[in-house]
Amino acid sequence: MGKKVVNVGMLGLGTVASGVVNILQVNREQVKYRAGTEIKIKKILVTDKQKKREVDVSPDILTTNPADILEDEEIDVVLELMGGVSEARQYIEEALRRKKFVITANKDLMASAGAEILSLARQQGRNVFYEASVGGGIPLIRPLKSSLGANKINRLMGIINGTTNYILTKMSMENMKFNEALAEAQEKGFAEQDPGNDLEGKDAAYKICILAGLAFNSRVKPDEVHIEGINGISARDIFYARELGFTLKLLAVGEELDKGIVLRVHPALIPSTHPLAAVLYENNALYVSGNAVGEVMFYGLGAGSMPTGSSVVADLIEAVRCVGYGVEGEMLEMFYNNINVVPMEELYSAFYLRLQAIDQPGVFASLSTAFGDEKVSLDMIIQKRSVEGQAEIVLVTHDVEEKFFNRALGRVQRFPFIKEINSVFRVIKE
Amino acid sequence: MGKKVVNVGMLGLGTVASGVVNILQVNREQVKYRAGTEIKIKKILVTDKQKKREVDVSPDILTTNPADILEDEEIDVVLELMGGVSEARQYIEEALRRKKFVITANKDLMASAGAEILSLARQQGRNVFYEASVGGGIPLIRPLKSSLGANKINRLMGIINGTTNYILTKMSMENMKFNEALAEAQEKGFAEQDPGNDLEGKDAAYKICILAGLAFNSRVKPDEVHIEGINGISARDIFYARELGFTLKLLAVGEELDKGIVLRVHPALIPSTHPLAAVLYENNALYVSGNAVGEVMFYGLGAGSMPTGSSVVADLIEAVRCVGYGVEGEMLEMFYNNINVVPMEELYSAFYLRLQAIDQPGVFASLSTAFGDEKVSLDMIIQKRSVEGQAEIVLVTHDVEEKFFNRALGRVQRFPFIKEINSVFRVIKE
Repeated sequence: MGKKVVNVGMLGLGTVASGVVNILQVNREQVKYRAGTEIKIKKILVTDKQKKREVDVSPDILTTNPADILEDEEIDVVLELMGGVSEARQYIEEALRRKKFVITANKDLMASAGAEILSLARQQGRNVFYEASVGGGIPLIRPLKSSLGANKINRLMGIINGTTNYILTKMSMENMKFNEALAEAQEKGFAEQDPGNDLEGKDAAYKICILAGLAFNSRVKPDEVHIEGINGISARDIFYARELGFTLKLLAVGEELDKGIVLRVHPALIPSTHPLAAVLYENNALYVSGNAVGEVMFYGLGAGSMPTGSSVVADLIEAVRCVGYGVEGEMLEMFYNNINVVPMEELYSAFYLRLQAIDQPGVFASLSTAFGDEKVSLDMIIQKRSVEGQAEIVLVTHDVEEKFFNRALGRVQRFPFIKEINSVFRVIKE
Repeated sequence: MGKKVVNVGMLGLGTVASGVVNILQVNREQVKYRAGTEIKIKKILVTDKQKKREVDVSPDILTTNPADILEDEEIDVVLELMGGVSEARQYIEEALRRKKFVITANKDLMASAGAEILSLARQQGRNVFYEASVGGGIPLIRPLKSSLGANKINRLMGIINGTTNYILTKMSMENMKFNEALAEAQEKGFAEQDPGNDLEGKDAAYKICILAGLAFNSRVKPDEVHIEGINGISARDIFYARELGFTLKLLAVGEELDKGIVLRVHPALIPSTHPLAAVLYENNALYVSGNAVGEVMFYGLGAGSMPTGSSVVADLIEAVRCVGYGVEGEMLEMFYNNINVVPMEELYSAFYLRLQAIDQPGVFASLSTAFGDEKVSLDMIIQKRSVEGQAEIVLVTHDVEEKFFNRALGRVQRFPFIKEINSVFRVIKE
């Protein structure tokens, strides 16, 4: 190792950056040993040098001028922890052009422009590390690149949004109402004040794009992900799911099928004995199927200052080792292929359906015929005693191509005895 | 990258080695891309060249002479997949002395002599990779070294023996008897014909030594691990555990306390909502607590030809990259400290106790006094209706230093109204 000290420039000093500073102080000896050299934060880009900070950093190293970091030839590694897309991208690309290693926690940027950024890194003989962009402290990127590197990955299935999992867990385990659970998540700081991106599944869509990029060497943009959120999920569906042996979760799924790849985020019923069903509250997990390893799962806190900082510092140790050894770094991503995105209509799924029907003779016969005519076969049926002439019916189908289910659903909706279709969810049976 | 092909020598062609050969054939392009160069198995050491093999290897590359691999200067990487301790160690050390990288799946060897072998690797400027020695295909070693490298690890808690977890799951979920479950595990190939090492906790003890070596930079030998197996576990304890909200698992635990380190393998009650409680059948998992990341868990198949092969090939890719780049390899382990091993007596635990008492007045008062006098306070009590004048009582204590619990237990045993102490287990409440 040539260098005695590796200088680091940090863009941003928010929540994650504070975690990084903390970890570098508290675990200093260990980090130094693992990195093989001393790590010094030489400059930090902030917008306000006077602002009171939660962490102990010398005011001398704060700057409001990005050039103080990007143009400093003594800085070998840049940590991009400022967030946002356009400025962050500009700084990262400038850092790479100046032959610096880059570490980023920027999910939006890596989901939308990861392929271009990694390609620039490759051209420059440098690398971009982004473990912290998905799953907070949970090791995901590195295991997909290295530990599972001998596998062809068939499917990723993740609970990768803490807010929605917190809400669903509170509704399921403590019979809390949706709005109460959301308010509590906001109070505890798990949910944003404007939780739209979380509840609608957009946050999870960004993350599954990043993970799928690695797992399938694909280049799927967030707007190509099929997205359904958890707004309007009812306690009754959670109740019925449990009665049928399932748990309702917001899943992000990436699959490579014969015809191409499909990425989707939607609520789904999974068996209550599935390891993902035991992922509670704000925890996250990614369940990976590979052709050699079988099924593995990675679990932990998907957000927070220290957990996310843990991933940033792990990346930093690796980048610093690359600088020390004078190598380009850990293996780069595979080249991206332009893989076909399969339309949801062509996917095979089982479905859960809850509806209200007028309690009259022939209802089941008509329903069965409607499904049967579209080649949809039924796996489970629940009907409890009807109330005021109205019956609540819950059906679970066997696996079927989605377009057939949709056709059957269209028929069912047109029956005069159907008062309301309450909910439709996909069911993952294994 | 200088080399176009990296030559590999393989010691052994059993179950795991066959998985490795399979993976290298099936996922050839991907492995080549990730490794940055072609990988060629140049020689395989076997005991019988005529034996029929399950995998497709050319008879020309089989040899019965280890020197054909160890003394071949064109071979840069040696895979030790033969098992056993003394010969395997001799070959590994010889390979390192000849500046070859080594990959091993040898749990017994790494647990008993890992420190010495890694130290030799360090002297030689080479590395030994041993992901496959613990947890089959589950990424454990690399995450502990790299992804969690920024953390001080406080505790490891694992289900790292598939046989015992299979038996306990069958007993718990399907009300199967111990012997039936064991027979089924043997039939399915999860349990050895002589399952002693698994049932007594020795196999898990080896594995926790390897993991603790990395997590705590310690050098604890397998015979310093406190071991209790699952022989004699009764369906009644599994029933009561569930009634109290717990699940009974065989855990391997490593902790770093103020006074030193403690490694232990024993059955324990964990909350049924704990992620480890959802680890069913032959699956394994490791739950890690770090001072930055909080809690993370790694889950998957802990054995088998292809899963274990997945870990070996991941190590192989890394070793080949080291050869290609001419670097020493991924970060080495920290230097081992001689950490004090804390006696079990000084540990704090909660306890579960099931006993049979004569149903007479004053029993609870006497029990309470015996516990209270030794500063053991009780958290939960179950007593069902007595049968033929005999009552079954189940108690769970709060956390207490083990020596106090043991003293209280001694007192309880001497009460004339106690007919039998059926079982004592530690309880992990979070």
